[in-house]
Amino acid sequence: MKIRIFDTTLRDGEQTIGVSLSPEQKLAIAKKLDDLGVDAIEAGFPVISEGESKAVKMISDEGLSCEIAGLARTNKKDIDAAVDAGLRYVHTFIATSDIHLEYKLKMTREQALAKAIEAVEYGKSRGLQVEFSAEDATRTDREFLKKVFGEVAKAGADRVNIPDTVGYATPEYMAEITRDTVIATKLPVSVHCHNDFGLAVANALSGIHAGATCAHVTVNGIGERAGNASLEELAMALQCLPYEQKYETNIKSELIYDTSRFISKTVGIKVQPNKAIVGDNAFGHESGIHTHGVLNNPLTYEPISPELVGRKRRLHVGKHAGIHGMNAMLEEFGVKTTEEQSKLILEKIKVLGDQGKQITDVELLSIASDVLGEKGIKRIVHLTGFSVSTGIGTMPYAFVKLNIDGKDYIGTDYGVGPVDAALNAIQKITGKISELKIKDYGLASISGGSTALCEVTVTIEDANRNKVSSKSVGEDIVTTSVQAVIDGINRMMLKNILNEKQIS
Amino acid sequence: MKIRIFDTTLRDGEQTIGVSLSPEQKLAIAKKLDDLGVDAIEAGFPVISEGESKAVKMISDEGLSCEIAGLARTNKKDIDAAVDAGLRYVHTFIATSDIHLEYKLKMTREQALAKAIEAVEYGKSRGLQVEFSAEDATRTDREFLKKVFGEVAKAGADRVNIPDTVGYATPEYMAEITRDTVIATKLPVSVHCHNDFGLAVANALSGIHAGATCAHVTVNGIGERAGNASLEELAMALQCLPYEQKYETNIKSELIYDTSRFISKTVGIKVQPNKAIVGDNAFGHESGIHTHGVLNNPLTYEPISPELVGRKRRLHVGKHAGIHGMNAMLEEFGVKTTEEQSKLILEKIKVLGDQGKQITDVELLSIASDVLGEKGIKRIVHLTGFSVSTGIGTMPYAFVKLNIDGKDYIGTDYGVGPVDAALNAIQKITGKISELKIKDYGLASISGGSTALCEVTVTIEDANRNKVSSKSVGEDIVTTSVQAVIDGINRMMLKNILNEKQIS
Repeated sequence: MKIRIFDTTLRDGEQTIGVSLSPEQKLAIAKKLDDLGVDAIEAGFPVISEGESKAVKMISDEGLSCEIAGLARTNKKDIDAAVDAGLRYVHTFIATSDIHLEYKLKMTREQALAKAIEAVEYGKSRGLQVEFSAEDATRTDREFLKKVFGEVAKAGADRVNIPDTVGYATPEYMAEITRDTVIATKLPVSVHCHNDFGLAVANALSGIHAGATCAHVTVNGIGERAGNASLEELAMALQCLPYEQKYETNIKSELIYDTSRFISKTVGIKVQPNKAIVGDNAFGHESGIHTHGVLNNPLTYEPISPELVGRKRRLHVGKHAGIHGMNAMLEEFGVKTTEEQSKLILEKIKVLGDQGKQITDVELLSIASDVLGEKGIKRIVHLTGFSVSTGIGTMPYAFVKLNIDGKDYIGTDYGVGPVDAALNAIQKITGKISELKIKDYGLASISGGSTALCEVTVTIEDANRNKVSSKSVGEDIVTTSVQAVIDGINRMMLKNILNEKQIS
Repeated sequence: MKIRIFDTTLRDGEQTIGVSLSPEQKLAIAKKLDDLGVDAIEAGFPVISEGESKAVKMISDEGLSCEIAGLARTNKKDIDAAVDAGLRYVHTFIATSDIHLEYKLKMTREQALAKAIEAVEYGKSRGLQVEFSAEDATRTDREFLKKVFGEVAKAGADRVNIPDTVGYATPEYMAEITRDTVIATKLPVSVHCHNDFGLAVANALSGIHAGATCAHVTVNGIGERAGNASLEELAMALQCLPYEQKYETNIKSELIYDTSRFISKTVGIKVQPNKAIVGDNAFGHESGIHTHGVLNNPLTYEPISPELVGRKRRLHVGKHAGIHGMNAMLEEFGVKTTEEQSKLILEKIKVLGDQGKQITDVELLSIASDVLGEKGIKRIVHLTGFSVSTGIGTMPYAFVKLNIDGKDYIGTDYGVGPVDAALNAIQKITGKISELKIKDYGLASISGGSTALCEVTVTIEDANRNKVSSKSVGEDIVTTSVQAVIDGINRMMLKNILNEKQIS
């Protein structure tokens, strides 16, 4: 059975605190969503501002394959604003729960019902496809909810939607009222679930099992408060989980990861590492038992292949590591070890892990090179001098002195800030020597005071487009950044040395 | 009905990629969990390393109120390691799914069953409470799973646990095999659910409805890959959602937020803003309709009160703002406006929002002071000079020149890094003038290159312990930090001026 995906990243998602998108940003996201294969996009709430109306118009004028909807309260002004924004599909809503009627709308049930019918009729008279939502449906009196949905269906609504506005539904109740609604309306029914108790995806699935044919979702699960049902989780659950009935969507799953990253970056809301499907760790393995299993058959510890959603598997060593995973990682770097050597390396890793330390690839290679006979990490690049200044009325500038294979090099450069200046100065030297480039620079959040630790990650690329990442932690953000770059450069060189050693 | 909470933050949670805790950190987390009211803690996997064994011993020796368990494979060595770590409760497991048996364990079903029975018997012979898990239970042949659980029950297991190891279960299937297990064992049954499709909490609840009396959970939902069922979501769902049967736990819900922050900080895994219950936005409101509703009655857009989980409500203005919410926020600062003035302020906010800009409190107050007749933001503190230096072999030091109410002040100081030095220098001046202190400094993640924007948030406190927060965005992390502090100081002063204006 084909399930329709109605994406509201640009409406409910944009209502996330602190998210404001320009019309150009909204259009860029709409195009990504269309490429991904969503069936409908809720582009915005045209009446709220001029920019919002302009954004919706830009999106509806773009000629995308999916349907474009806009939100409107049950009044003429809001519906007219949708028409003015070029829409042919309006999503109109009014609250039907007693708590919303009494405290927010200050209306009786009958008044709200009359407004709902009026709005649906007006929307139809303006030639629109009309989807009607009974806001706070899951806390609405069950008989009244049936009545409202039945009446708007008679009034000509094309679709109805059941919003679990405060994420209060249980999957069981979601199923019951979905069945009610299907019977009362005989229309296509959507569900719009919020995640206040972590149940949004389960509630959406439960509504679908009970007869809903469409779900409102957002990419990365953003939205009001704890957000909405996440597009990627729902789409993959429908496609992959062993339900009795087979479900399908039009989502091109291999574009999910790329879309998630694009939207995270554009709206400025980071995805947590343990986010299902799209989080950094969703296809990562560290513990020995898991890594061992995955190396024998990925399906032992992965419900689906990472490639299915446009990703790659990620192995990691640490305190919980086992010998199989560690050897597999060393082999990735071309390092082969005897059983004896592997045991020694693993022992050293566990000692570091027990001290609460993270083991980076550099450290793993450094320990390996130690055990294999190269004493300590062979630093080919030594940072021998460094200073940087910035301020008001001055250009941030940096001075760097490096010793590479016994020869001194000096680099100076400026930048948009002290870190940029320092990285530019290093790049000037290393570019000359070995065509190494700093491809990416990331700074992990710190908090708790100006003396807290910061964590810098850099990616270095060589002339053959090989990449290595390196991480450094420290109190001084500028010197920590420089340290990360120098470590990355050394790691790239160490990798090449270890590779050569294996070949010879 | 009382549901037992078995917390595995220190075992499955610590298996999160990149998380390594020292024994001292593990003990500190165990104490927090005990205070929170969990019934059992899985303290670790003693056999994996010396430090892990030491950590488990420290926790089991601490005399906490909750039970302390440790993980062990079905072999004597692992179970002996649990005993050696001082445990009286072991959680032993072996995989029972064909895919794990064939590719990981390379055993037949019968061999795995024999190992399981052997381990339970051995654990009992060593005087332990034994909980047995059939790893990958949800992909195990249903008849074989019943047989395994039945046999380990006969062998003397005290509890059995159903792990949904790769998060592959649907709530429907979780319920079915839970019922099977209750019947086959007549023992207390736990469920251990992973979140690979966002269904961990729903699957745990479904298991509980079907007869399980305990759930394995982690704080913030950390754990392997997409993590485990989140303690806070499950506990609050059990306590607050309208199930036919009433559920209870021993969790002191008002400590949830504090525990979540402590663990996030200790393990170094940030909580996403849209995380249910404990995310920054979980009780935040920006859109006009929501803010208006919440001001009339918080329950219109909040399923539970934030105080219930140790939190406060958060209002925010932005592109989606309405007049009611904005007025409420202005009133918080003591600013009363006419209807005309409010409309003007809201218009200006929407123009900024449409440009993709976030509206901070300072901007709101600045716009308000503009409309109320104070032209522009009245900057009492002007930054007139600033320079900072750092490097290798030198102390990071800063020079700051401020003009406050027409008078010049100079401050110099050093710090652990250039930002710290600059903040110290400012603090030296402002402390002298008005007893303002920088209480908190936070830096939001940036990525994409060294020229990317960074976002700095600072909190300023005055002598009466009033606090204001201020945010600044820019390319140069050091000057952006200084700008945020100066903005914060001005905001504090502006607030006081606006307050006086209302009073007079």
